Amino acid sequence: MPELRKDPIIRRWVIMAKERAMRPSDFKSPATQPEEALFCPFCEGNEDKTPPEILSYRRDGTLANQRGWRVRVIPNKFPALRIEGNLDKRGIGMYDMMNGVGAHEIIVETPEHLFSLTQLPVSTVREVLWSYRDRLIDLKKDKRFLYGLIFKNVGREAGASLLHTHSQLIATPFVPIRIGEEVRGAGEFFGYRGRCIFCDMIEQEKQERARVVLETDQFIVFGPFAARFPFETWIVPKDHLSHFENSPKQVIDDLANVLGRVLAKLEQALEGPPYNYVIHSTPWDREYLEHYHWHIEIIPRLTKTAGFEWGTGCYINPVLPEDASKYLREID
Amino acid sequence: MPELRKDPIIRRWVIMAKERAMRPSDFKSPATQPEEALFCPFCEGNEDKTPPEILSYRRDGTLANQRGWRVRVIPNKFPALRIEGNLDKRGIGMYDMMNGVGAHEIIVETPEHLFSLTQLPVSTVREVLWSYRDRLIDLKKDKRFLYGLIFKNVGREAGASLLHTHSQLIATPFVPIRIGEEVRGAGEFFGYRGRCIFCDMIEQEKQERARVVLETDQFIVFGPFAARFPFETWIVPKDHLSHFENSPKQVIDDLANVLGRVLAKLEQALEGPPYNYVIHSTPWDREYLEHYHWHIEIIPRLTKTAGFEWGTGCYINPVLPEDASKYLREID
Repeated sequence: MPELRKDPIIRRWVIMAKERAMRPSDFKSPATQPEEALFCPFCEGNEDKTPPEILSYRRDGTLANQRGWRVRVIPNKFPALRIEGNLDKRGIGMYDMMNGVGAHEIIVETPEHLFSLTQLPVSTVREVLWSYRDRLIDLKKDKRFLYGLIFKNVGREAGASLLHTHSQLIATPFVPIRIGEEVRGAGEFFGYRGRCIFCDMIEQEKQERARVVLETDQFIVFGPFAARFPFETWIVPKDHLSHFENSPKQVIDDLANVLGRVLAKLEQALEGPPYNYVIHSTPWDREYLEHYHWHIEIIPRLTKTAGFEWGTGCYINPVLPEDASKYLREID
Repeated sequence: MPELRKDPIIRRWVIMAKERAMRPSDFKSPATQPEEALFCPFCEGNEDKTPPEILSYRRDGTLANQRGWRVRVIPNKFPALRIEGNLDKRGIGMYDMMNGVGAHEIIVETPEHLFSLTQLPVSTVREVLWSYRDRLIDLKKDKRFLYGLIFKNVGREAGASLLHTHSQLIATPFVPIRIGEEVRGAGEFFGYRGRCIFCDMIEQEKQERARVVLETDQFIVFGPFAARFPFETWIVPKDHLSHFENSPKQVIDDLANVLGRVLAKLEQALEGPPYNYVIHSTPWDREYLEHYHWHIEIIPRLTKTAGFEWGTGCYINPVLPEDASKYLREID
C-alpha cells in the first residue's frame, strides 16, 4: 500500500509509491528503447495484457476485454494509489500521513497504435471526453475521494512511458495543494469583487484579443497573461461551470472540436512538442461553486525547470503570451 | 526591460524575459555540443569575456578582472532581471505587472574548469559561501528588493547551460510565492504551538534518526518526511536562524564542510546526478523571524515531472526518504 505523507510546512501531500521503489542504481542510466521495438498493451488485440476494463465504448455485440472497442478505460497496472482500503489517518509525532488510497485509471483513446489525439476523428475525441466525464461521476460517489484529476502526458520529456495516445485519471483522498490555492485565490477575488475571476478574465481577453488563440460558441482559448511557459494555453468554457463533469452535452461536444484544433496548432507550431494537459476543476466536497471555473491548461514542455523555479515557485518565460497566441492564432 | 506579471488567481509572479525572446523554431531542436568544444567564459584568463566583476576573493596584489582570483562574482550576461530602473507598478484591467527590476549574479566557484563543488578544497567552498553572504548583505540594502535567492544548477538536466561549477543569485522585488507559503505555513504552526516548526522537525529527526544523513556541531542533514523527490536532502542549521546572511562565522564555516560531504555522498550514490540546490531564507522585509528557519534543499533530478505534478502541485516519490537516507548515511 502506498503512503500519503503531508509536508508540515506548506501542507502538501506527497504520494510515497514505495511499491514502485527503486534502488539508487535504477536512476543511473535510464533505458531508452525505440518505441517500435516495444510491445504495446494498449493496442487492440492485447486486451488480456491489461487489468480488466472499467468502461469501454464499443461496437454492439462485442464483449468486454475483447476487440471491438473505440475508447477503453482500464486500471493503471502500476497505480500510484490503490482503490481498496480505508485512509487510516494517523500522526507520527509532528508529521501526518494516511494510506495511499485512490484511483488511478488509464483512458486508452484509440485501439490503433497512434501517438496523438489529433489523429483521431472528432467523434472519437468526443467519446474520450465522455469517458472522462463518466469516470469522474462514478468515482465522485466514493466518499473517500475529494478530487479527480484528468491529465495527459505526451512525449517522453513530458513524462509519458507509453506513447500510444492515452489520458490518465487520478482520484485523491485530499484536495491537491495547487487546486486548493486556486479555489482560495478565486474565492478571495469573489469576496472582494463579487464575480468569478475566470468570468472576468474571459471578458478582458475578449476585449483585448491579443492573447486569444480561438473562440467558439462554448469556449475561449488564450495564453494566460502571466503564462509560466512558452505557448502555455488555456481552454476555458465561456459559461460559468464549476465542475467539468457537470458540463452539459453541447459543452463537451464543442470541447472535442476545440481541443483537437488547439493541439493541432501547437503540434504544427512546435513540430510535435512534448506536452501535458490538465483539467482543473472544483473539488468534490462542493456541489457547486460560484467562484471557481473549470478549465484546461496545456503546457508544452520546451524549457527546463531549474533551481530558480524550485526555490521560488516562480517562472521565467522567454516568450510573451501575446507573441505565442498570435503565432497560434494565425495557424489554420 | 523584462516584465513581471502576476497570475491573478494564485498571485504568482512570472518573469517575462522578453529580451531573451525565442521564436517557435528555437524550441525545435535544442543544440547539444560537447562541453569540451565550447569556450568557457568562467575560466581564469577569460575575465574580459564576462561583465566586470562585482566581488572577488583574490591573491594580494592582483587586479580586478584579471588573473589571481579564487572566487569571482559577476553579473549574469543574460540576466532574467535588470538592476537599473524603478518598478513602475501598474494594472492592465484586472491584471498586475511591474518592471523586471532585480539582480542576477553568477558566483564562479573556481578559476579552474571543474564541474563539481566537491572537487574544491573546503577553504574554497567556505569562500563561496562567504561570497553568497557578502552579496546578499549588499543587495539587501537596496530597498527595491524583497528577497535574495541563492541556487545552483548542476548538469544539463537540472538546467545548467555552462558546466564550469558556479552558483547564481537572483534578487527579486517581490517575495516568491513558494517562500511566502512556507513563511505563512510556519507562522501558522508558530501561532498554534508557539515554536518554530523547523526547530521541532530537528528535534523529531534527532530522536527518530531514520531520515538523518549526518549531523555535525552546527547542522543536521536529513531526507524530509514528505520528500517530493528520490534522495531529496535538506541541510538545516541546528540553532534557530531566520536569515542565511545573518549566520555567524562558525555556522558558515561548518556549512562548507557539511555541503561538500553531502554532495559527495549524492554524487557517489547516484553517479554524478544532475541536481539543484536552493537556499530558503527569510524575506528582507523582516529583520528577524521567530518562526522561519533558513535551510538548503538539495534536489537530485532523477524523475520527470508530468501532468500529475503540474495539475496538483503534489508529487509521486518512488523512494522513501528513510531508504534514501540510510543509503546516504552509510556512504563514507
